[in-house]
Amino acid sequence: MELQEFSQRLQEEMGSFASEPASVTKHGGEEPTESLVLNTPEPPSLWDELTSAARGAVSVSRQKKSSSPLKCIISALYSLFPILRWARNYDLKSFRSDLMAGLTLASLGIPQSIGYANLAKLSPQYGLYTSVVPPLIYAVMGSSRDIAIGPVAVVSLLVSSMIQKVVDPSVDPNAYKKLVFTATFFAGIFQASFGIFRLGFLVDFLSHAAIVGFMGGAAIVIGFQQLKGLLGISHFTNNTDVVSVIKAVLVAVNHPWHPDNFLLGCSFLIFILITRFLARRNKKLFWLAAVAPLLSVILSTLMVLVTRADKRGVKIIQHVDGGLNPSSAKQIQLTGPFAGECAKIGLLCAVIALTEAIAVGRSFASTKGYQIDGNKEMLAMGFMNVAGSLSSCYVATGSFSRTAVNVSAGCKTTISNIVMAITVFIALELLTRLLYYTPVAILASIILSALPGLVDIKEACSIWEVDKMDFLACIGAFLGVLFGSVEIGLLIAVTISFIRIIINSIRPRIEMLGRIQGTDIFCSMRQYPKATETPGILIIHIESSFLCFMNANFIRERITRQILEEQDDTEKGGKSLQSAVIDMSNVMNIDTSGITALEELHKKLTSVNIQLAIANPGWQVIHKMKLARLVDKIGGTWIFLTVGKAVEACSGAKKDDDCGC
Amino acid sequence: MELQEFSQRLQEEMGSFASEPASVTKHGGEEPTESLVLNTPEPPSLWDELTSAARGAVSVSRQKKSSSPLKCIISALYSLFPILRWARNYDLKSFRSDLMAGLTLASLGIPQSIGYANLAKLSPQYGLYTSVVPPLIYAVMGSSRDIAIGPVAVVSLLVSSMIQKVVDPSVDPNAYKKLVFTATFFAGIFQASFGIFRLGFLVDFLSHAAIVGFMGGAAIVIGFQQLKGLLGISHFTNNTDVVSVIKAVLVAVNHPWHPDNFLLGCSFLIFILITRFLARRNKKLFWLAAVAPLLSVILSTLMVLVTRADKRGVKIIQHVDGGLNPSSAKQIQLTGPFAGECAKIGLLCAVIALTEAIAVGRSFASTKGYQIDGNKEMLAMGFMNVAGSLSSCYVATGSFSRTAVNVSAGCKTTISNIVMAITVFIALELLTRLLYYTPVAILASIILSALPGLVDIKEACSIWEVDKMDFLACIGAFLGVLFGSVEIGLLIAVTISFIRIIINSIRPRIEMLGRIQGTDIFCSMRQYPKATETPGILIIHIESSFLCFMNANFIRERITRQILEEQDDTEKGGKSLQSAVIDMSNVMNIDTSGITALEELHKKLTSVNIQLAIANPGWQVIHKMKLARLVDKIGGTWIFLTVGKAVEACSGAKKDDDCGC
Repeated sequence: MELQEFSQRLQEEMGSFASEPASVTKHGGEEPTESLVLNTPEPPSLWDELTSAARGAVSVSRQKKSSSPLKCIISALYSLFPILRWARNYDLKSFRSDLMAGLTLASLGIPQSIGYANLAKLSPQYGLYTSVVPPLIYAVMGSSRDIAIGPVAVVSLLVSSMIQKVVDPSVDPNAYKKLVFTATFFAGIFQASFGIFRLGFLVDFLSHAAIVGFMGGAAIVIGFQQLKGLLGISHFTNNTDVVSVIKAVLVAVNHPWHPDNFLLGCSFLIFILITRFLARRNKKLFWLAAVAPLLSVILSTLMVLVTRADKRGVKIIQHVDGGLNPSSAKQIQLTGPFAGECAKIGLLCAVIALTEAIAVGRSFASTKGYQIDGNKEMLAMGFMNVAGSLSSCYVATGSFSRTAVNVSAGCKTTISNIVMAITVFIALELLTRLLYYTPVAILASIILSALPGLVDIKEACSIWEVDKMDFLACIGAFLGVLFGSVEIGLLIAVTISFIRIIINSIRPRIEMLGRIQGTDIFCSMRQYPKATETPGILIIHIESSFLCFMNANFIRERITRQILEEQDDTEKGGKSLQSAVIDMSNVMNIDTSGITALEELHKKLTSVNIQLAIANPGWQVIHKMKLARLVDKIGGTWIFLTVGKAVEACSGAKKDDDCGC
Repeated sequence: MELQEFSQRLQEEMGSFASEPASVTKHGGEEPTESLVLNTPEPPSLWDELTSAARGAVSVSRQKKSSSPLKCIISALYSLFPILRWARNYDLKSFRSDLMAGLTLASLGIPQSIGYANLAKLSPQYGLYTSVVPPLIYAVMGSSRDIAIGPVAVVSLLVSSMIQKVVDPSVDPNAYKKLVFTATFFAGIFQASFGIFRLGFLVDFLSHAAIVGFMGGAAIVIGFQQLKGLLGISHFTNNTDVVSVIKAVLVAVNHPWHPDNFLLGCSFLIFILITRFLARRNKKLFWLAAVAPLLSVILSTLMVLVTRADKRGVKIIQHVDGGLNPSSAKQIQLTGPFAGECAKIGLLCAVIALTEAIAVGRSFASTKGYQIDGNKEMLAMGFMNVAGSLSSCYVATGSFSRTAVNVSAGCKTTISNIVMAITVFIALELLTRLLYYTPVAILASIILSALPGLVDIKEACSIWEVDKMDFLACIGAFLGVLFGSVEIGLLIAVTISFIRIIINSIRPRIEMLGRIQGTDIFCSMRQYPKATETPGILIIHIESSFLCFMNANFIRERITRQILEEQDDTEKGGKSLQSAVIDMSNVMNIDTSGITALEELHKKLTSVNIQLAIANPGWQVIHKMKLARLVDKIGGTWIFLTVGKAVEACSGAKKDDDCGC
């Protein structure tokens, strides 16, 4: 009945579509489904959607609302500090596992931390500091049970390559250190706010393929950077791109240099790689690979101490400050000329660190069958980096290699991180003096040995196989990091990924649909060659979820051309094209440009005597078509729930026309 | 048969899905449609699509290939110079119409050109030059029959507001002029290359809503700029934002000023507006509105000449160079410090000019029922501006107001533009000396009278009604132009439009589908409350056309949560959820992140004993799922052509399970 009312209103408003009332009577049988399309409830408005998104962002946990305030606070605490949840059930057996895992982690973490501090152009103790405070904080706030927190290679490279452009660490190490802490502080603030405001999707802006390429490129850049330590070169380039580094190495090698550094580094690198190889062959020997770096440090230090090779040109670490992390709260410069720059660097570090940590956390969580909450994880990382920046740490995150060792060593909970932190703290108190004679080349070989895990050629191949555009983002990021800089690599990766999405939105395909014989199923005739055309009716499917300013004109022109070409073809065959069905089931939203395009399309088709029918428009689409009075112009009876109904109505109209003739 | 082969391969490869072969026998009946999904031909590869896009860009015209080289050249010429096509059928009657239209156009164009040159901070003759060369070139190359070419208000504002930031025209008018010609040259080059490389979509980056807002804001800004001329102020601000302009006016008004300018300007503005009002009431009087500006110029010039009001503070134009356009080829600076800046300004002008011209061209073409080719139009505009930049013109484009007058005056072809150009040329030769005493206030009132057409409040209201986000872009552009600058307004508009598309891609909805009783139609239960759930089966529809790095994790998490919640609910009701059907008919493309998300979803559902079925994945999607071996993991028998088939298979499996119990 509503339909008839509607059609009356239509007649009053338009006064020109004489064929409308006839078709209402004709297709009276389809009334139930047809009126469905036009009589849907109003879709949620922009305001509803914004407020519901805001509610989602504000509510801390999805607990039931009926609980008392005390229970609310407890559940909020439980949600903020997951340790409270499992601490009560924690038993001695788990602790024994965690203790072993923590000690193994520390034996790998201590030499790696010193090496990464070197990569970040900081004194060795700052790497150790970064392995004390952040793991402790993460242990009480983090939701992953496996992740091992501390400094990592890529973030260390990012920090040094970006901050040295502002202040040269060899000229003014104190100013450089201040900027590092400031950037770390900003990184923590950004990470925490991503978590609080549920901006987790920002991490998704780096696609998996881009990360693979970026990590591979960064690993190779880091490897080249290690040539400085491995060859014992004093003057080295500040650029990170491969070309500059090779040039610098060639220049340095032409000057007198000390091959002892190289020999020492290479022999221990080979030792570490052999232990790794053995560990991979026999899973029970994993501890050998984990301990090898520490063993190398101890052995090489002893060798230098005994032979006094440092007097013959072997570069050594020399003085390392001992003791607990000093406060660095006063060194953070939130005002001043470099604050903006530090915020920018902090943002980049925050995103890269989160990307790595969440990728690590997710992959181990999925193998162990538990979920980690991205937003909570970001909050924990943020707090840990803010606390770190106040206690002489630089940006910490979850490390790929150490997390794998942690899991292999049988960690059960984040207690292993606490054990590691305490062990590193003890080492800071007691053993820093022993690091005096540790050769720099050993640090280089430890970093080098951790790199192969970052270059994932197998994954790159499978990306190439599945998706060529993804591979383009991957190789773009890789080459950008290698020959440009870390930022350029990231920029290329993000740009390629975005361009792809924009192109996808700008130039959607339209497909001709055909009926699969004997069924009421309509599908693309190119995809399913068995589908056949319906004579006299052209069915066009718009493959875009948003008919908007970017693609509306393009789609309108494509559809018009297709219909006119089809009309020419059918007229040559002696028949004629009488209706065009636009299948809009993919179109979920539309804007004013899209409405205008549909309106123009309808006008054009009317002018060449082709009836336009629309099938299954999305909720927002039908709502906006009603608001813009486009439904009245096209005619409410020519909007259908399914392509099948539309085709039925069109062929019905056609037969009637034929009879009429 | 293929299905059984496939299922055998599946068993060999997986070896673990014991239930698969059973279900193959079970659903043997659906074989024809099921195997269809998996046995589609390969979709066009990236390379195919790129080459076909390139072919589309290279081929000048869509003519038949069988013709001889001579015919090819002729058809290319016809396509480049549409005038060749209609010139042969051009008759005296059409010429009479075009002559009248051209003369009317010139009478409006001459005063407007002088006014716009004033707005662009150039001497009056440059406006006239711009009404000579570009219309002549457009007349032979353009595909629109109605458009009137020449200087327009918004582009003049854009030129002056951007170039005066580089060189102040009151300090060094010659350097300013050089930059204007260089920017015009760049604008022409950009426009022509958009046409050649089929980059017409760049113009689509400005949504209709953004243009409405931008034009409205620009009109008001231009209006405020006219206060300088209207009040006869000598020292005025260079900023275009409303706040600076009002401040400058308040400062100037507090100094002694000459109200004669204001009186003169206002009275003629009222005169022009009255003629416009009369013309709107009586369509036959349109010529009165068209001639009124010229009449005002003549009358006011005579008044000043007779009363010598210039001696009493009425500002006059003074000297205007006569004669044909001088060459400005030597003034174009393609090297030098400002070339980059000029290129940027040229790009902005190119886009704005094209947007206006194509909007004007399209709207009049659609009322007269012919098509204009966007790419060809850009090429014509590009050539006309390059030629213009070499002959002392600044950026020309199609004018809203003059095109309307041209159409009202009955133009038939672009010959009316030629008539106008010749008339302006004659005026340049003979009448420039007479412009000496023309008061500046009259130019201001002519520009002011042209502005109301640019502020489209009605359209803004209808945008608000239909689409709130579009209105946000509209009002953003409006306020940006008004209180910031032209570039800020544009930036805001483009940013809002893009953010909307990105948000649409990042956070797609998922909808639960239900069956409309008595049919095989499944649709959103929120949109169609009549649709009912199928017990034991949850049907989820992904409303995104691209399952990619940006939304894959979000969609996976949403679907998992929805399924687990549903499972809890049904288990409370004593029943159990046994299958989840993911309707992927909207998903046209997928990347490696999307594949991973589907894989994880399948793993998760398997772990909670829910069968995953996929309905109607897009062409690229099924292809990439096969490449990534995801089809094998999910099981080829659980991928269906339609939701109906999937539900049928799931309930079949469920019944079998129930019987087994």
